[in-house]
Amino acid sequence: MINPFFKNNGPFKFKDILEHLSLENDQNNQDQNIIDIKDLQNSKSNEISFFHSKKYKAFANNTKATFCITTKNLQNELPKSCIPIIVDNVLVSTSLVTAKFYPDSINDDFDITVEEINKTKFNDKVLFGKNVLLGKNVSIGSNCKIGHNTIIEKNVMIENNCSIGSNVIIRNTIIKNNVRILDNCVIGKHGFGFFPKDNKNLRYPHMGIVLIEDDCEIGCGSTIDRGSMSNTTIGKNTYLDNQIHIAHNVRIGENSIIAGQVGIAGSSIIGNNVKIGGQAGVSGHLKIGNNVEIAGGSGVIKDIPDNSKVMGYPAKNIRQFLKENR
Amino acid sequence: MINPFFKNNGPFKFKDILEHLSLENDQNNQDQNIIDIKDLQNSKSNEISFFHSKKYKAFANNTKATFCITTKNLQNELPKSCIPIIVDNVLVSTSLVTAKFYPDSINDDFDITVEEINKTKFNDKVLFGKNVLLGKNVSIGSNCKIGHNTIIEKNVMIENNCSIGSNVIIRNTIIKNNVRILDNCVIGKHGFGFFPKDNKNLRYPHMGIVLIEDDCEIGCGSTIDRGSMSNTTIGKNTYLDNQIHIAHNVRIGENSIIAGQVGIAGSSIIGNNVKIGGQAGVSGHLKIGNNVEIAGGSGVIKDIPDNSKVMGYPAKNIRQFLKENR
Amino acid sequence: MINPFFKNNGPFKFKDILEHLSLENDQNNQDQNIIDIKDLQNSKSNEISFFHSKKYKAFANNTKATFCITTKNLQNELPKSCIPIIVDNVLVSTSLVTAKFYPDSINDDFDITVEEINKTKFNDKVLFGKNVLLGKNVSIGSNCKIGHNTIIEKNVMIENNCSIGSNVIIRNTIIKNNVRILDNCVIGKHGFGFFPKDNKNLRYPHMGIVLIEDDCEIGCGSTIDRGSMSNTTIGKNTYLDNQIHIAHNVRIGENSIIAGQVGIAGSSIIGNNVKIGGQAGVSGHLKIGNNVEIAGGSGVIKDIPDNSKVMGYPAKNIRQFLKENR
Repeated sequence: MINPFFKNNGPFKFKDILEHLSLENDQNNQDQNIIDIKDLQNSKSNEISFFHSKKYKAFANNTKATFCITTKNLQNELPKSCIPIIVDNVLVSTSLVTAKFYPDSINDDFDITVEEINKTKFNDKVLFGKNVLLGKNVSIGSNCKIGHNTIIEKNVMIENNCSIGSNVIIRNTIIKNNVRILDNCVIGKHGFGFFPKDNKNLRYPHMGIVLIEDDCEIGCGSTIDRGSMSNTTIGKNTYLDNQIHIAHNVRIGENSIIAGQVGIAGSSIIGNNVKIGGQAGVSGHLKIGNNVEIAGGSGVIKDIPDNSKVMGYPAKNIRQFLKENR
Repeated sequence: MINPFFKNNGPFKFKDILEHLSLENDQNNQDQNIIDIKDLQNSKSNEISFFHSKKYKAFANNTKATFCITTKNLQNELPKSCIPIIVDNVLVSTSLVTAKFYPDSINDDFDITVEEINKTKFNDKVLFGKNVLLGKNVSIGSNCKIGHNTIIEKNVMIENNCSIGSNVIIRNTIIKNNVRILDNCVIGKHGFGFFPKDNKNLRYPHMGIVLIEDDCEIGCGSTIDRGSMSNTTIGKNTYLDNQIHIAHNVRIGENSIIAGQVGIAGSSIIGNNVKIGGQAGVSGHLKIGNNVEIAGGSGVIKDIPDNSKVMGYPAKNIRQFLKENR
Repeated sequence: MINPFFKNNGPFKFKDILEHLSLENDQNNQDQNIIDIKDLQNSKSNEISFFHSKKYKAFANNTKATFCITTKNLQNELPKSCIPIIVDNVLVSTSLVTAKFYPDSINDDFDITVEEINKTKFNDKVLFGKNVLLGKNVSIGSNCKIGHNTIIEKNVMIENNCSIGSNVIIRNTIIKNNVRILDNCVIGKHGFGFFPKDNKNLRYPHMGIVLIEDDCEIGCGSTIDRGSMSNTTIGKNTYLDNQIHIAHNVRIGENSIIAGQVGIAGSSIIGNNVKIGGQAGVSGHLKIGNNVEIAGGSGVIKDIPDNSKVMGYPAKNIRQFLKENR
């Protein structure tokens, strides 16, 4: 995960974390510094991780994290080098700790720091329309176009030869070369992720970004949310039609073609050379292989192996579906 | 129904109404004043109502309305205190009469009266972006944020601690406390309601409003239409993801979670603690109970009782659906 | 097909076309002028056409085109008056040749030539909001309204009594009388049409327009793409609800009613008096007859004859569908 944008407010002492979680502080190591929070695989020494489901047992067994938020039942899966922090609800506690490290990654109020582009150093470098606004920490390469009323909020890197349409809003996003973002898109806002708690929703931090690789096209009115603990990625030369929604943490491969009004739910991974017909939907946390074709209107609710053609709701082999539905 | 916004142009005399409907005027009571138009349940003395289907017989039997637009066949269901006005097409005639009372509620041309926010009394009270426009009869509480290019047209009340994104358009709407409206939403326009007649469509008035209760979040690019004769309501702490469409007269309860690209057709009622997966659709005039879960991609075409989990199109018990679709 | 907007850069000599396609130039007629490119039916003498599938054999047999891009296998279907140009991939070669004739029709970068409306001749003729931008070659009739932040890019003709909302983007479009375009629509951009080739997508030209006939309404957040070699047409008094996507080359008849979030894929033809329920989808290249009713949520994958009512995915007779899905 690339995270060039969200400032880590740490380190925090172990005792500060315990206090933040309203946990009793009868532990050793109270003054040890915790540098960052990451998932089980990517954590290193002096970092904190979280472990909430047996599904991730293998990662837990081998984590390098010095601290881990987990439950009484799961704690024994952690290595001796890892100090368990026992809580009732791992994900809620993880949200709270992540929010302490990355407070800027939770809410997306509009960026009040933007300036009109003609008052910035990009005045002579970019071909731009009326009323274009740029935030802090924005870079734009050569030969780029930005349409009318478009708002590039803070934390956006645009490389060369890109064409951004009008009425577009972008934040927390890296856009590589030769990318076209059409009118009315919203790219890089936080995902739809939160935990319901006591008739309130506790929003969890989204410190991932959106990464759009070379040669992509994103159709009008599409929304691409940034990731929570990983990035939302659109691979090289992948084309999205109008009114598509790509949720947080989704990764789409290269040379894929996605027709209008498709929705991909959070954390699903789509392969290379995938074709998805209009209005199809892919549930969250799925893996769609390479060279897969998903017929328009399908609802995919399980993993799809490479080279398959599927159709229907739930999506199944297209021949079988058509045979059953003559 | 709260209707703080649309001015009632009445009262009108009974004979004016008859003339407006091109009906013969051989009736008594010609000079009696009619104060307002309401549905059968809510009408009072000196008001006019309408009765077009046997489904509403019980309400018709007990209406307090002094006048009622209805058909020859249905008129006998009305109490003696109620004077029937016999027409061929009850809904078309009702539209015409409602339009006479509430002419401002039919079409939504852009609000030409808006001013730049920095020329209004809200200049020092609200944190706002570039090019924000405010219409007449707008109130905004403390600690609110309004993003760039957002247009708050006439008839909008926003309470405290709300965050409105950029490129948002709102009219005829009450927004309570701690609400977040994300970028590119359109809230409070009239619904998709009209009667086809002689190769023209006769639009019926939408004098309801949109009411968004405390702690809600509305995702990017969503549209919420205002009600016709009732309000469109989003209950407390209900969260909507991106690209959702909520049609006129819909009522959604509290603590509900609605994922991306869902559509709820007109006049349906959704309970509390309901979860609706991405791209699901709910047909019009349905009642979805409390604690219902509707799987992503489902199409709901009948009422769903409390505590049910449904999936499929048409949506049915989720276990049954998954069993039948292995 | 009406094409008042895209400039034909021809004529080109036959030898220039051969060179453009990197074909060997051992042909006669090298200096003959080619005036335009059209489909098989509409081509005339001294024009070039293309023939890529046996499906179009009858048109090929009778084409008036002097030149035709085709394959070795298909060339014998052409009349003797037509000179075949043999290529490996007809559609890719056709794209290349069309792009030579109509280079402006390929990409839709934002229109940098727009001016603020109050600096144009329309300042006194149109009722307009703040920050309205107009491009070259725009005409607007009497009694029209254009909302805030709306961008009418180049090549738009608007007739009388039209109401355009706020945040709308329109280009390459003819809008007849009494049309209402609601907020946040994008109308007239190129369609989602291209050929994948060597890990790049070769976009084909869209030299068609969008034509919206009298009395139509287009709901908020809808997208209507212009045609490639024909126009995208919305017939008289057809109403579209919010968040609808109409792809390139689609033709919708008169007096049709299309509910929220519907998508119509490329080149499908929808009849008169058709009703389509919310979230339904129609695949590409289909013919939906007159007076057809498509239930909400349906997925239509084959032609539907006049006067049918269909439901389901794939859509079938509605009675049969409901019987099978009790």
